[in-house]
Amino acid sequence: VVPQGGNTGLSGGAVPDASGRELVLALDRMTTIRDIDPVGLTVTAEAGAILQTVRDAAATHGRDLPISLAPQGSVTIGGLVATNAGGLDVLRHGMTRDLTLGLEVVLPDGTVVDGLRALRKDNAGYDWKQLFIGSEGTLGVVTAAVLRLVPRPRHETTALLGVASVEDSLRLFARAQDAIGDALSGFELVGRSAMELVARHSGLEPPIRASAWYLLVQARSALPGLREAALALLENAFNDGIAIDGVVAESSDQATRLWALRERVTESEAAEGPSVKHDVSLPLRAFPAFLAEAEEALASASPGARSVVFGHLGDGNIHYNVLLGRGDEPRHAEILNRTIHDLVVRHGGSISAEHGLGQYRVAEWRRLASAAEVALCARIKSCLDPEFRLNPGKVLPQPERD
Amino acid sequence: VVPQGGNTGLSGGAVPDASGRELVLALDRMTTIRDIDPVGLTVTAEAGAILQTVRDAAATHGRDLPISLAPQGSVTIGGLVATNAGGLDVLRHGMTRDLTLGLEVVLPDGTVVDGLRALRKDNAGYDWKQLFIGSEGTLGVVTAAVLRLVPRPRHETTALLGVASVEDSLRLFARAQDAIGDALSGFELVGRSAMELVARHSGLEPPIRASAWYLLVQARSALPGLREAALALLENAFNDGIAIDGVVAESSDQATRLWALRERVTESEAAEGPSVKHDVSLPLRAFPAFLAEAEEALASASPGARSVVFGHLGDGNIHYNVLLGRGDEPRHAEILNRTIHDLVVRHGGSISAEHGLGQYRVAEWRRLASAAEVALCARIKSCLDPEFRLNPGKVLPQPERD
Repeated sequence: VVPQGGNTGLSGGAVPDASGRELVLALDRMTTIRDIDPVGLTVTAEAGAILQTVRDAAATHGRDLPISLAPQGSVTIGGLVATNAGGLDVLRHGMTRDLTLGLEVVLPDGTVVDGLRALRKDNAGYDWKQLFIGSEGTLGVVTAAVLRLVPRPRHETTALLGVASVEDSLRLFARAQDAIGDALSGFELVGRSAMELVARHSGLEPPIRASAWYLLVQARSALPGLREAALALLENAFNDGIAIDGVVAESSDQATRLWALRERVTESEAAEGPSVKHDVSLPLRAFPAFLAEAEEALASASPGARSVVFGHLGDGNIHYNVLLGRGDEPRHAEILNRTIHDLVVRHGGSISAEHGLGQYRVAEWRRLASAAEVALCARIKSCLDPEFRLNPGKVLPQPERD
Repeated sequence: VVPQGGNTGLSGGAVPDASGRELVLALDRMTTIRDIDPVGLTVTAEAGAILQTVRDAAATHGRDLPISLAPQGSVTIGGLVATNAGGLDVLRHGMTRDLTLGLEVVLPDGTVVDGLRALRKDNAGYDWKQLFIGSEGTLGVVTAAVLRLVPRPRHETTALLGVASVEDSLRLFARAQDAIGDALSGFELVGRSAMELVARHSGLEPPIRASAWYLLVQARSALPGLREAALALLENAFNDGIAIDGVVAESSDQATRLWALRERVTESEAAEGPSVKHDVSLPLRAFPAFLAEAEEALASASPGARSVVFGHLGDGNIHYNVLLGRGDEPRHAEILNRTIHDLVVRHGGSISAEHGLGQYRVAEWRRLASAAEVALCARIKSCLDPEFRLNPGKVLPQPERD
């Protein structure tokens, strides 16, 4: 049985295998928003409810469900929970796990467990719902969820900066934390090659001087003074030689145009050709060394290949994608995967920051995780789904049947 | 084997039974702070490190570990994780679970599982660490943790308000969200009887007119403008008849004095005499009905008893404690527990918001939780600790031995 939400997944968690013997359990008719509490800041929605619909409903109460993903018109609540989805609001509000207060789950044996409590604090018994968040439908079927809402911020400021190095990007991040604190709601990185693809395929150009790296910095607050704080941050960064050029959006239209530069990267990259994708996270301070080593490894493994680097630097999560060269064969993808993932693990990172293991990254995780971790995860699977009824082969390799 | 941190627990999770046959595993010599990363905003510390020590170390880098509990000079990192501790910073930064990025855990069979990754985003495999957070040492022994740090806010404002009802308190909470957004960092409630105990035993009086309820409202931000926002909130609340009286602290000394009114409640209550304690959470909108029904039940069950109500209203968590009357016998405690807990469950709440089940609340949880939830928790325990080696009888009742 393969539970499926909006079927937008990037690593195959919701896709049945090729055997023709798996049953897709579509949740797209369970769409009811059962409750919105604008004072208690919670929404209770069924698994098939669409993210955009839930956000629109919250907005009528001046509240928001802070999960921002490109496909929000098709993503479902169940899919968000099952994959512990990330997106553009993680820096400020965390992953979907951090927003999940309660779940209703159907276990593989058919038991319905109702944990739809709309509570911020609940230390009664084990917090079993955590097991199902991010487990990609392999332990139980999420049928409804209680999620946290947040007040909609009244003020918002976006800046685009050009910097010469990743080191300078990290310096800027530290300064932004000091200046803006946790009103800092976005700190996105776009490398020069990614920005060039956006220009070529989406016709958008950054309104600042060409740089090795671009940073989109966003702040949100109920309080005023964001624009002043952003301008001061920029000015200090120029004076100290940390930023090369930059602009603070003067209107929400201009902010939207700046964000489009970031949002169009994925489709522009796709228009350029097929790429080998990596969704990695690292401790922030490891990025300079990791990126230098990755470029070196890339040059020696596949001289015609080009890296496309962009992502949520503030969350420690970047997409290190590689456009293969003309002469490269499919086996290059596998070699590259292993090379990049080895580097990630050596620097204390994760080979799947926000897209999950699904099918595509199962073997790599198994190769790289410690035996103790794999064994613990296998124990959890056996405990909840001893017959491997749910989503077999996803996350964990399926044991051979006797 | 009973793992023990600072031994400050309020519900007996770290206390061995009376048999004399249990072994206390003290972690108080594992005190090393292994790493602080002020840019990546993480701290890695061993289980026995003291909260205050870790906060002091973070402060030297301009960062903070946002967990504020009265006994922070004796609370340990391991204890915080094992109990998923709450405290005064939950409204803004969540429970300890929300701050925990990685764990090192020893399983009951002796396996060491190293998950000390300092990553905000990691969707590789099941997030097994969640099982151990808040499980009160019944599933594994936490030996070290990676926790999130936050930038230290430069501005802080505290206001004390008097209101006539819990309904008005909730109205004020909604307005504070609109006006201050998520710079709102504290929204604490103190009932009149609790405030009278503080006056009697600690000699502190609120600098505003006597009210049925007092609210301590705190905001923190890197941005200026908090005091203006708090004053505007107060003025509007007076004009609309929601607040009776109020004051915004004019200095950090005055803010400290206002907070002392809240912080001295527990010790003042203890000085008055023994009380029956309830640590409950509810959806915010359920509080008016719950409190009215609880007072009614109290009057009929135990006419001489007095309630002492205070707590983290913004988190939906209050301590509903009861000072028994002169003629009340010990069995009144049990009757009261059941009465209050029945009400809590009827309103969709939890009977243990932040103190855990330990020993004291195990039977009540078992009585009130659904069979499906208890069975799922028992399955998790059997999966990880099939021989009940760790902390037997805590959280879950121990099955009888053959």
